[in-house]
Amino acid sequence: MIRRGFQAAVRLGQHRALFGGPQVLPRLNLTSAFGSSTDSLVSRFCPEKTDLKDYALPNASWCPDMLDLYQEFLEKTKTDGWIKLPSFKSNRDHIQGLKLPSGLAVASDKSDWRIFTRCIQVEGQGYEYVIFFHPSEKKSICLFQPGPYLEGAPGFAHGGSLATMMDETFSKTAYLAGEGLFTVSLNIRFKNLIPVGSLAVLNVHVEKIEDQKLYMSCIAQSRDQQTVYAKCSGIFLQLQLEEESPQ
Amino acid sequence: MIRRGFQAAVRLGQHRALFGGPQVLPRLNLTSAFGSSTDSLVSRFCPEKTDLKDYALPNASWCPDMLDLYQEFLEKTKTDGWIKLPSFKSNRDHIQGLKLPSGLAVASDKSDWRIFTRCIQVEGQGYEYVIFFHPSEKKSICLFQPGPYLEGAPGFAHGGSLATMMDETFSKTAYLAGEGLFTVSLNIRFKNLIPVGSLAVLNVHVEKIEDQKLYMSCIAQSRDQQTVYAKCSGIFLQLQLEEESPQ
Repeated sequence: MIRRGFQAAVRLGQHRALFGGPQVLPRLNLTSAFGSSTDSLVSRFCPEKTDLKDYALPNASWCPDMLDLYQEFLEKTKTDGWIKLPSFKSNRDHIQGLKLPSGLAVASDKSDWRIFTRCIQVEGQGYEYVIFFHPSEKKSICLFQPGPYLEGAPGFAHGGSLATMMDETFSKTAYLAGEGLFTVSLNIRFKNLIPVGSLAVLNVHVEKIEDQKLYMSCIAQSRDQQTVYAKCSGIFLQLQLEEESPQ
Repeated sequence: MIRRGFQAAVRLGQHRALFGGPQVLPRLNLTSAFGSSTDSLVSRFCPEKTDLKDYALPNASWCPDMLDLYQEFLEKTKTDGWIKLPSFKSNRDHIQGLKLPSGLAVASDKSDWRIFTRCIQVEGQGYEYVIFFHPSEKKSICLFQPGPYLEGAPGFAHGGSLATMMDETFSKTAYLAGEGLFTVSLNIRFKNLIPVGSLAVLNVHVEKIEDQKLYMSCIAQSRDQQTVYAKCSGIFLQLQLEEESPQ
């Protein structure tokens, strides 16, 4: 059986000891191993011209708090170095021309793939979110409004929906800040429930990059910062995508 | 502003110190505080007669491994004390006649609520899963097959979709085993990616119940146990639902 996952991934990178057992990582030359600049990653990830639908745009379901903050950060893209990340239907659309390393490729007979956080396309019913990224400060902010299809306890967002939103914001930030590609661990402490339809603001930081891993932190709270919904730390593994060979 | 969440919940239970700061919990009489037997919780949770649709039944999208194991555990419900849990569209359907404690009630103008793990109703595209629970051993098994709308990296399930499935299996197990109602923390270590359309088997155990908290563990792996997808520990807070007053 071919293991399709991290163990295959780390074999490719010759880091067999990454998971389990004593971790004795070979010292890599990080400049050559992860040489893509944030600028080049961002320009590939956020194409200026595309026919792809961007789901991270305001719609009638957004609450006033979400619209306000969206406008505020959109202004900051002009002056303060923030970038609004587009959000396409699948990660395949973001990384066109690239692919996972060979050991992780999967044959596919499915045509309709969706990134989990865009699985529900009816406005306002599922995930509404937009991520802004700050390249030089290696941080992101995610405006997240859970809809009624993301319910856990009656009237509140499922803990898993927030965990997913944190993982997804980590993921985009980790990739753009340093080619972080796979979640190694998530450690979440829930503090308060998010009422369905209201806004949670996720602040994500890359704390450090060390031994091919990115160490991330996230706090999710209300706009006025009076209610903390959850805190999370996460570790991501750096791994370079490969150029896709022409079909 | 009214905080709707754990802090309201713990105020109700007079456990202000549960989150943050030194944790000095008052000693409760757990027998009286959490007196509902697992039998009575199960019989309310798994009504023998209902018109509600049970989503945890085989359909044409289930892979052979999932069908096999489903049949195997269905047999065990007759001989080994396992119970197949039904899975309704919303947690509201499971806890009919009960409600969250008053401080957690939310006004609602929405009519179409869905539990996050049943947010996609097209067979095979989103979550396919079934949970079996063993009351006397306080453990569960969840058969989980992620569809193409749960994608993260191309061809593989999003880490958040597995985190959600673990949280949801914890949640149902914690409630039935000891009225565990809210996720306090999740600590997940990811080992291998789950290819979309394949089966992951989640084994969940209640490790201990102490100071109104349930300590849970989960391992998610392939059917042959040769590939570990992730390991997780979780803590749930005990809290009793209230009888709903007649409308």
